[in-house]
Amino acid sequence: MNIIRTIEELKEMLQNKNRSVGFVPTMGSLHEGHISLLKKARLENDTVVASIFLNPTQFLVGEDLDKYPKKDDSDKKICELCGVDYLFMPDITTMYSKDEVLVKAPKISSYILEGETRPGHFDGVLQVVLKLFHIVNPTNAYFGKKDAQQLSLITQMVKNFYLDINIIECEIVRESDGMAFSSRNVYLSQNERIEALKISQSIQLAAKSIGNGELECKSIISKMDKILYSNEIEIEYIAIVDRNFQILEKVELENTIVLVAVKIGTTRLIDNIWV
Amino acid sequence: MNIIRTIEELKEMLQNKNRSVGFVPTMGSLHEGHISLLKKARLENDTVVASIFLNPTQFLVGEDLDKYPKKDDSDKKICELCGVDYLFMPDITTMYSKDEVLVKAPKISSYILEGETRPGHFDGVLQVVLKLFHIVNPTNAYFGKKDAQQLSLITQMVKNFYLDINIIECEIVRESDGMAFSSRNVYLSQNERIEALKISQSIQLAAKSIGNGELECKSIISKMDKILYSNEIEIEYIAIVDRNFQILEKVELENTIVLVAVKIGTTRLIDNIWV
Repeated sequence: MNIIRTIEELKEMLQNKNRSVGFVPTMGSLHEGHISLLKKARLENDTVVASIFLNPTQFLVGEDLDKYPKKDDSDKKICELCGVDYLFMPDITTMYSKDEVLVKAPKISSYILEGETRPGHFDGVLQVVLKLFHIVNPTNAYFGKKDAQQLSLITQMVKNFYLDINIIECEIVRESDGMAFSSRNVYLSQNERIEALKISQSIQLAAKSIGNGELECKSIISKMDKILYSNEIEIEYIAIVDRNFQILEKVELENTIVLVAVKIGTTRLIDNIWV
Repeated sequence: MNIIRTIEELKEMLQNKNRSVGFVPTMGSLHEGHISLLKKARLENDTVVASIFLNPTQFLVGEDLDKYPKKDDSDKKICELCGVDYLFMPDITTMYSKDEVLVKAPKISSYILEGETRPGHFDGVLQVVLKLFHIVNPTNAYFGKKDAQQLSLITQMVKNFYLDINIIECEIVRESDGMAFSSRNVYLSQNERIEALKISQSIQLAAKSIGNGELECKSIISKMDKILYSNEIEIEYIAIVDRNFQILEKVELENTIVLVAVKIGTTRLIDNIWV
């Protein structure tokens, strides 16, 4: 595996346009979720590029940019074991300069749910993803369904900007007790970790209710609310949307995502299920 | 020459990645200025693509979008005679959809000069140029120096977003009396056309003064102001900037652009000279 720090070097390495390139962009602190993306990329492409870049423009003032977990050595090891060919690890001055041309997420869909509590977050996500797409020029780019709204907006950007890239949606990977893997799970105390189980339990209940024919979103959300009720959990939102992130009143089978965002202590956690 | 209306068809035509592609994006109403871009593109590339798209997002409310001159038949003829291979003429629903991911021009350099009187104009320019770049994927893209600030911002976008495209800066083409070609010249009455000559005279005087060793911008601007003084001419700005559009106090040789924007009647005209 080659570790690459500069854009010129990476572009040089990827000059052969006849090979398919799979790309997995990350912010590091890799876990089983990322590993599943890397393995899928390895299976489906001639060349695999992963990137690790803790992107400052997607963090709001006061968010956890400074304490975001860093695990460079184990990240490199994981990429190597997953068969990554090129691991791109740029520093911030490589990726950004002053007073730049910016990307702005769509008004409506980027200022609800995640965007409501994190205004501007998706502008930063799309900005860095667009840059990385231009640098790597991948055939296929892999994103987890866990960040469902991010995935939806990246898919929209590719469509709006006419990029020739396939966005591959990858399933959420969970621990044996159902908890979705997340780089932020390490922030949780033992007690908080137990409380956090209610998150995946709530969406699994939603899926089960829907399976049993319950389609009224209000009623499903109310059941989830009951499961999540706890002194330790502050619910940011429970929402049921279609694949384009339009809020639904009635579940549309094969076109619905049930979303939860909570805070446990100071840790913000999200989860979702696609039905 | 093939006239192409859809993105899919154009991408299909341009699949051969081993041929160099020269691209000339326009809003139609082609004149000698455009012809010089097309000829240069023809000389320097295997394949030449031109586009004609009157881009609504770069016009502000109340500007001349509706009355912007349209000359489809002569435009097609000109492209054919200049050796264009593919003329891309999309309609608006091909290029835009609702609530899109947007491009935002840099705060500082896009809100001075042209951007001051036309706030948001450059956001629209960069948005459509980025889309067209992704669709055509050109080796070389040709822009005239007449829209100097636009050229500077497009160059910056290519740099900020790491696009693999050479931006080719092309000289301003003038009528025999010095007037720069512009699609908007057709708006001028005979009398206004005579008054408009003062624009090119003012920048030619600036260039001459600089040639004679005058480097104080204040003094140069004052001389230009005198030439432009007229009941028919409303000066929007006279400015002297470096290639990055930083306002200069002293001329920097080989790094200076002298700019003028005026209104004559209801017609807005710009011109500049690079020294």
